[in-house]
Amino acid sequence: MTLLVIYDLALDKERDRLANLCLDFGLARIQYSAFLGDVSTRLKQRFINELNDRSFGTDSNIQVFLLEQDWQKRRIIVAPKSGA
Amino acid sequence: MTLLVIYDLALDKERDRLANLCLDFGLARIQYSAFLGDVSTRLKQRFINELNDRSFGTDSNIQVFLLEQDWQKRRIIVAPKSGA
Repeated sequence: MTLLVIYDLALDKERDRLANLCLDFGLARIQYSAFLGDVSTRLKQRFINELNDRSFGTDSNIQVFLLEQDWQKRRIIVAPKSGA
Repeated sequence: MTLLVIYDLALDKERDRLANLCLDFGLARIQYSAFLGDVSTRLKQRFINELNDRSFGTDSNIQVFLLEQDWQKRRIIVAPKSGA
């Protein structure tokens, strides 16, 4: 399945921490605050668990979408940044 | 179907313009740079057309995901901001 992770985090260190977690799980950065990638069901659960185990500030907002199919239907309006 | 719109836009006026477009189409802000909502197929196409008709800076990145089902599977790790 495909995970899409988007986040609003106030602190640089929290953003870095979350970005590194996403990279550890093989997700690719598609925007400044968005990561996307395919993971197994077990890895997905580990990812969610690790997110839940970490503390983030009260203004933080992290949303994880499970795109089980057809995520390729995303439409990119403007050329993505390099690496996306 | 459900549209998820996420964006990286450099200019305030572009962000405001895109946010207003999303609101016009009935999408709800779920993060600072993310909108979500249900639209008909025809409205979805209008939305895409309007996005394509507008010019955004070359560093801009707007991605539209079509979540045809089960978008409720999103997992919110930290309490959403008010209105989300």
